[in-house]
Amino acid sequence: MSNIHAVIITIGDELLIGQTIDTNSAWIAQQLNKLGIDVVRRVAVGDTKDAITNALDEELQKASLLILTGGLGPTSDDITKPLLCDYFGGKLIVNEKVLTHLKEMFAKRNRPILERNMKQAEVPDVCTVLFNDMGTAPGMWFEKDGKIIISLPGVPFEMQHIMTNVALPRIKDHFPGDAIVHRSVFTAGEGESFIAEKLLDIEASLPNHIKLAFLPDSGFVKLRLTGKSTNIEQLTAEIEAKQQEIATRLGSIVIAMDDMPVEKILGNTMKANGKTIGIAESCTGGYIGHYITQVAGASAYFMGSIVSYDNSIKQNVLGVKEETLTTYGAVSEETVIEMAKGAMKVLNVDYTLSVSGVLGPDGGTGRVKVGTVWMAVASKDEVKTKEFRFFYDRERNKEMAAKNGMLFLWKFINNKLSA
Amino acid sequence: MSNIHAVIITIGDELLIGQTIDTNSAWIAQQLNKLGIDVVRRVAVGDTKDAITNALDEELQKASLLILTGGLGPTSDDITKPLLCDYFGGKLIVNEKVLTHLKEMFAKRNRPILERNMKQAEVPDVCTVLFNDMGTAPGMWFEKDGKIIISLPGVPFEMQHIMTNVALPRIKDHFPGDAIVHRSVFTAGEGESFIAEKLLDIEASLPNHIKLAFLPDSGFVKLRLTGKSTNIEQLTAEIEAKQQEIATRLGSIVIAMDDMPVEKILGNTMKANGKTIGIAESCTGGYIGHYITQVAGASAYFMGSIVSYDNSIKQNVLGVKEETLTTYGAVSEETVIEMAKGAMKVLNVDYTLSVSGVLGPDGGTGRVKVGTVWMAVASKDEVKTKEFRFFYDRERNKEMAAKNGMLFLWKFINNKLSA
Repeated sequence: MSNIHAVIITIGDELLIGQTIDTNSAWIAQQLNKLGIDVVRRVAVGDTKDAITNALDEELQKASLLILTGGLGPTSDDITKPLLCDYFGGKLIVNEKVLTHLKEMFAKRNRPILERNMKQAEVPDVCTVLFNDMGTAPGMWFEKDGKIIISLPGVPFEMQHIMTNVALPRIKDHFPGDAIVHRSVFTAGEGESFIAEKLLDIEASLPNHIKLAFLPDSGFVKLRLTGKSTNIEQLTAEIEAKQQEIATRLGSIVIAMDDMPVEKILGNTMKANGKTIGIAESCTGGYIGHYITQVAGASAYFMGSIVSYDNSIKQNVLGVKEETLTTYGAVSEETVIEMAKGAMKVLNVDYTLSVSGVLGPDGGTGRVKVGTVWMAVASKDEVKTKEFRFFYDRERNKEMAAKNGMLFLWKFINNKLSA
Repeated sequence: MSNIHAVIITIGDELLIGQTIDTNSAWIAQQLNKLGIDVVRRVAVGDTKDAITNALDEELQKASLLILTGGLGPTSDDITKPLLCDYFGGKLIVNEKVLTHLKEMFAKRNRPILERNMKQAEVPDVCTVLFNDMGTAPGMWFEKDGKIIISLPGVPFEMQHIMTNVALPRIKDHFPGDAIVHRSVFTAGEGESFIAEKLLDIEASLPNHIKLAFLPDSGFVKLRLTGKSTNIEQLTAEIEAKQQEIATRLGSIVIAMDDMPVEKILGNTMKANGKTIGIAESCTGGYIGHYITQVAGASAYFMGSIVSYDNSIKQNVLGVKEETLTTYGAVSEETVIEMAKGAMKVLNVDYTLSVSGVLGPDGGTGRVKVGTVWMAVASKDEVKTKEFRFFYDRERNKEMAAKNGMLFLWKFINNKLSA
């Protein structure tokens, strides 16, 4: 087992009052993990000298690699750079490369460069600069008693850019270590407990260096195997054998052998079969189209979506009959069938998915309860329908409807609907 | 100033390998903040006895309120409950109310109840149960040396439900404290540094108990004033005067006096004017429709969106001329004008927004660089266009296009486009 332990420290009052969700830590953790470095803790502290200094003191005792993000902006609530300079006993000096880059950035955007922006070119003379060609705040690399401390801006794409291009390669050189291998099995249709019960003996049979975790999300359950070893070939073979054993045991509820989102699973099917899809969505408001187009290259198979939020659009664009809407309502099997068939014509595709429901908090009626979502999938020859019930709030119900809709379409296209 | 300091501890290996983004901490921090309780640190640790025990020991020295989330599921990687039971010197006993609830939940979903689910009805006899009527894992409230330790499930909607209905009212009774007041000014069109420069003297004039923070996001900058005092009326008056002073200074770049997303700002305008909107989106794939329908009650003004990802949909549904597409390309001023006008007809609304661009990583041509997005807004009488350039990755470019599109439409409807 490797002894390289990392701690991620995020700095900023906005994290402590909940105004910002910390996505940086998760991203950094993923990257370090690939290098075989364990993140043992993540700590968020406010923009005060005491809080930051205290976190540095404490976490340096627990880890050999600290990654700090945030606190490097041009405004006066950002105090991290001078603090780090003091902490490591240096003084601030202008870095000419950073200064030139700053001037160019402002010129390109036709904005005047201010004194406080120029200050961003100052760096402690006791650090190595991690050049930030996507933004104004440079990253910094400090070494102390054999430990590494890296400070990065908090803006996610700037942080990611510096990490990928500069910091991670340096970290890899500095800490050559054990390999970590992850393998996943992605399931839909059964709960966490039920699956755990079916895998009791397999879980018990795992060697000490392989762990199994259960990660439920929006009606899906991801199973993740994680192993660590110096021998990456042997570990990979071992962990893939366990992955296969689990998949065989779980049978038809397995939808992928990878940790990938449903839109990617659907996209892979479409890229392989050369067919096209289109959507007719109501309550999801465009969210399904959004998910599908998160996949680069989706234009090869995704033609479009008719977001028919109002009934007039269902009638005028998709050709749903007024009679159907008045007799059965917008949230009904009859309506989603006509939506899916209408979309086949309007979008001229091989397969369609239609979705109409009541996500809440209001909009329920005696006939249709909040959380009810009807869906239909259609091809040239066939239409299938399904009624879903989601029990949560508007936002979560929408996410579940979108993800389950893509899964429904994927199953239909792959002839797995009876499963 | 209040002395009530809280620490949030999130438990789970998935947080340390980056498989899960921690949204719970932000939500909890917001809620505590409203009660005048400062969150001073957030710590994430893995599912090991040492890590959790160590975090409890350390953070209990720093705070009078600890909130733990995660580690309470039915699978064997969840070890928090027995650990807490030991830590506070209790033993596990079955809670009849929780057991009855569990049996009912499984019956309602037609799933067999397993031994490991029944286990979830066991709670330490040294805690007060915080009943979870949305899930299977109950929350727990412990007291030790005048400090409060609350353990909650990690599933966001279950955690939120228990907090809102049970934990927060108890916390409020237990720690009556200072009030915290936040006020925001939401701006678009200028950078953080430029704004900070314009507000130098106002920032310097703030009393010690009021802080100003700059929060840039997707081309917008939110300014947040935070104050703390025992006299809530006086504090509110004082902080609102500063908010007004800032807004007056910044003039036309201010788009709202509240911390609310653009879709909500747009929604408020539409609810007030009684008009309708519709979208014709290409590269954003449905994301604009999704944002708009995140606002409850959007059905009053949002009719729908034509997601014309493929050019055939631009032609067949929106009526864009083939000649326009071949002469100028899909990403052009001419095309978005025809899309916006076409959407006016097809969706039969008062205002439309159309969006067509290249978000990357591929798809750029000699004529159109990656990151170029053309937009048009239309009413019955006029059409306005704008070319945007976004410099980031596909996902972020999409988000910026969606948010800036809604802002463009909002400005058009409010006659603020020249500003």
